[in-house]
Amino acid sequence: MSLSFCIIGAGNLATHLAKSLNSHGFSISQIYSRTVSSAKALADELNTSYTTSLNNIDPSADIFIVAIKDSAFDGVLPKINFNNKLLVHCSGSTPLSVLEKYSKNYGVFYPLQTFSRNRNVDFASIPIFIESNSNDNEKKLIEIARGISNTVSVLDSEKRLNLHISAVFACNFVNHLYTISSEILKSCGIPFDVLKPLIVETALKVQEIQPVLAQTGPAIRFDEKIISLHLERLSENNDYRELYNSISKSIFAHHK
Amino acid sequence: MSLSFCIIGAGNLATHLAKSLNSHGFSISQIYSRTVSSAKALADELNTSYTTSLNNIDPSADIFIVAIKDSAFDGVLPKINFNNKLLVHCSGSTPLSVLEKYSKNYGVFYPLQTFSRNRNVDFASIPIFIESNSNDNEKKLIEIARGISNTVSVLDSEKRLNLHISAVFACNFVNHLYTISSEILKSCGIPFDVLKPLIVETALKVQEIQPVLAQTGPAIRFDEKIISLHLERLSENNDYRELYNSISKSIFAHHK
Repeated sequence: MSLSFCIIGAGNLATHLAKSLNSHGFSISQIYSRTVSSAKALADELNTSYTTSLNNIDPSADIFIVAIKDSAFDGVLPKINFNNKLLVHCSGSTPLSVLEKYSKNYGVFYPLQTFSRNRNVDFASIPIFIESNSNDNEKKLIEIARGISNTVSVLDSEKRLNLHISAVFACNFVNHLYTISSEILKSCGIPFDVLKPLIVETALKVQEIQPVLAQTGPAIRFDEKIISLHLERLSENNDYRELYNSISKSIFAHHK
Repeated sequence: MSLSFCIIGAGNLATHLAKSLNSHGFSISQIYSRTVSSAKALADELNTSYTTSLNNIDPSADIFIVAIKDSAFDGVLPKINFNNKLLVHCSGSTPLSVLEKYSKNYGVFYPLQTFSRNRNVDFASIPIFIESNSNDNEKKLIEIARGISNTVSVLDSEKRLNLHISAVFACNFVNHLYTISSEILKSCGIPFDVLKPLIVETALKVQEIQPVLAQTGPAIRFDEKIISLHLERLSENNDYRELYNSISKSIFAHHK
């Protein structure tokens, strides 16, 4: 397939996706970012051109991939001429239909992963979820996705929203709990390193065991004495104490 | 060191710890559990003896390791004759001092990990935290811990309580979020498998990047449109909606 891609965005997702497409033989014809340094850095890495002006986005690309944050869609998309080429976004919670006013050919290309700037990810293991306005476009997107990932599925906007919510719990909220635990340790001078094997094992366990069966700790043991002791120790931080309380209650509710 | 260990308990922690000690050349002289099947299963595996009667615990062991849940301590410990031998518990949140009425020699041996029955763990990578009533006993416990783990530290009861609370956030609460995400997926027929690479990557990221710097998702982007959409979708489940709301607010508070 000798399709050319224009990548709208140069953030973490745009960068990792463009690099993965490029390394699998897809041609990246242009990078757009409103920030010169980001646009240039990514374009240089891929040996391609860039622009920071929406007017200068080349309408001859075969596929436009919108990899900017959802809240920026309305400010950016109406200003680009997509020439009715295949226009796709990469968002978990934004319906397919938001694209219909911008092109006759549109779709969704949602890679389910957390992307950080200085961390390489192996796209082969990242599940990619496809949706499109036509069978032809769906086929095309599936073929592209299979070029970089071993796990490609078709999923409609309704279910993708649920999938994104589940990912918010399993990744974004989980990471915030890591942050809280690191701050509790910091407050008494214990290095975060000591928690690392526990964090990895907790994630590895649910690769094999259903999470509901992998639950351990004071809450599932209904150990009120320990829970009270923890809440008392957290009394100086309302935020942590309330989260401790509400998550413990949710564990009770699930396992009663 | 030719010390003999009596293990009080045959649950997940007791089993993994006894097996690790045994495989590193320590002698397990007896297993106690109130449940015959658990006591026998572990004793058979270690080719040692067991009892289900507190009166029949052999007071000639050199070290007694109490690996039962904290809430059972008061019902079990007063009924055992420890013969002033070294008595240790393995609890994160129970102070060292609870043991002083049972023996002249006592300590804490706290392995920071989550243990499940059908899952092997490599004790070498598990941090073990030691506390004791005397320098001699502390030395002895450090030597034993170093026999099975590469990471051994001395930590007092106050700090161990904080450490345990941080582990509750980073492991027990994290696992509960995995459970919630699996149930959200189940409700729309998506297999939990699709989240597994994300879960692993989220845990691996914080092995290298501080969690506060690894945060991604709608909350740290203050994307109120997406957050409202998620809360609306969760409206049928008060528990999930409230957790979504309170964890998002906590992320706002950390990153504002």
